[in-house]
Amino acid sequence: MPKLNIKIYRNLMGANDLWAVRTRALLKKHHVVMLNLIGSPGAGKTRLLEKTVRALSKTCRFAVLEGDVATTHDAERLARLDCRVSQLLTDGACHLEAKLVHYALRDLPLTKLDLVVVENVGNLVCPAEFDIGEHAKVAVLSVTEGEDKPVKYPTLFREAKAVVLTKMDLLPHLPFNLKACRAYLRQVNATTPVFQVSAQTGRGMAAWIKWLREMRHENQTTDARRQTTEK
Amino acid sequence: MPKLNIKIYRNLMGANDLWAVRTRALLKKHHVVMLNLIGSPGAGKTRLLEKTVRALSKTCRFAVLEGDVATTHDAERLARLDCRVSQLLTDGACHLEAKLVHYALRDLPLTKLDLVVVENVGNLVCPAEFDIGEHAKVAVLSVTEGEDKPVKYPTLFREAKAVVLTKMDLLPHLPFNLKACRAYLRQVNATTPVFQVSAQTGRGMAAWIKWLREMRHENQTTDARRQTTEK
Repeated sequence: MPKLNIKIYRNLMGANDLWAVRTRALLKKHHVVMLNLIGSPGAGKTRLLEKTVRALSKTCRFAVLEGDVATTHDAERLARLDCRVSQLLTDGACHLEAKLVHYALRDLPLTKLDLVVVENVGNLVCPAEFDIGEHAKVAVLSVTEGEDKPVKYPTLFREAKAVVLTKMDLLPHLPFNLKACRAYLRQVNATTPVFQVSAQTGRGMAAWIKWLREMRHENQTTDARRQTTEK
Repeated sequence: MPKLNIKIYRNLMGANDLWAVRTRALLKKHHVVMLNLIGSPGAGKTRLLEKTVRALSKTCRFAVLEGDVATTHDAERLARLDCRVSQLLTDGACHLEAKLVHYALRDLPLTKLDLVVVENVGNLVCPAEFDIGEHAKVAVLSVTEGEDKPVKYPTLFREAKAVVLTKMDLLPHLPFNLKACRAYLRQVNATTPVFQVSAQTGRGMAAWIKWLREMRHENQTTDARRQTTEK
């Protein structure tokens, strides 16, 4: 058959996915796990990361990519903990795109890292729709936000490989119904694990840290197995 | 000069602005004030509206347009208070566009209304960028979200004609610094009034209700003046 000369144009989403594929290859090459942390403004993502850095820094080589519309506040908070951190500014845009993440990732010393956590722009809608090449999306929901958020913002909670319920220490002061929240979550996602944490008191952090370690271990084992097969 | 035959295509934002202009004309014709309530998921927008409906329903003819990605939860909450309410579902989209608002508005009995409040999709980024023909954007920020949100999401806070700080009853349990929050707000908006409210206890609601009454009065006076001039 003669070769047909057809120009192919991809839409923007397609271009984004292409960068996500490149990122996945880059991460696999260096056996690095990347998580995409998504939650509302003020859900406690940075606070969770501060505590996570403290708990993991001795045993896990860690970097954070901080997504924000404006300011470098969150990156500064993590840099104060001696955490390797880069700031990704969207200049008004509502989510991180794969290309920006890829470029920031390439500037990291990936051979010396185990885990990269991307803190996406504070937003429950748009970031959930853009693949940035992560191994897992993690939804962060504060108990101050009300129990019905999983069904009101279903895309994120459907895709989340883990849900972190934050600010649990505030529960006694809120009309929040934990059982109802879990039931709403199960309407859109039957299996995702839920971590109930208070970064303030440290309660529940251990289970979350354990999950992170397992994610990392699982990824490195899979990579090792793949390399054996490929030989 | 001969008439040039040039086709003009507008971008989507242009089309949105056209619908916003139509909405403004429609509101003016019927002397109705429309507010665009914008805040994060779980900032307490619906709770604020519930209390507002209760406080205003006797003296102000009121309707709510409820914007949501999915579910009719919020509209149901307001309908239970005998508030006239319509649900605007975006089916995944992160903000309300002017056309959808315009169509919902046209279905309301505008001659019998003084005030329409649009509760936008829970999101601090995208809704701030779309004019829906409102008289004023009102930013709703919960004290659980942290004090730096005005500089981290500057577009909304720059444009807001009022800022409502919600969940003030939780302040004793939070590391939130009220003075710092106001200072951050003043970096992007030197004049907008701030209402510190707790819909839970009712504290601060009176000042917010007074502002709403003034908005309505101001609009109706301006309209009356304009009509006198036009005669």
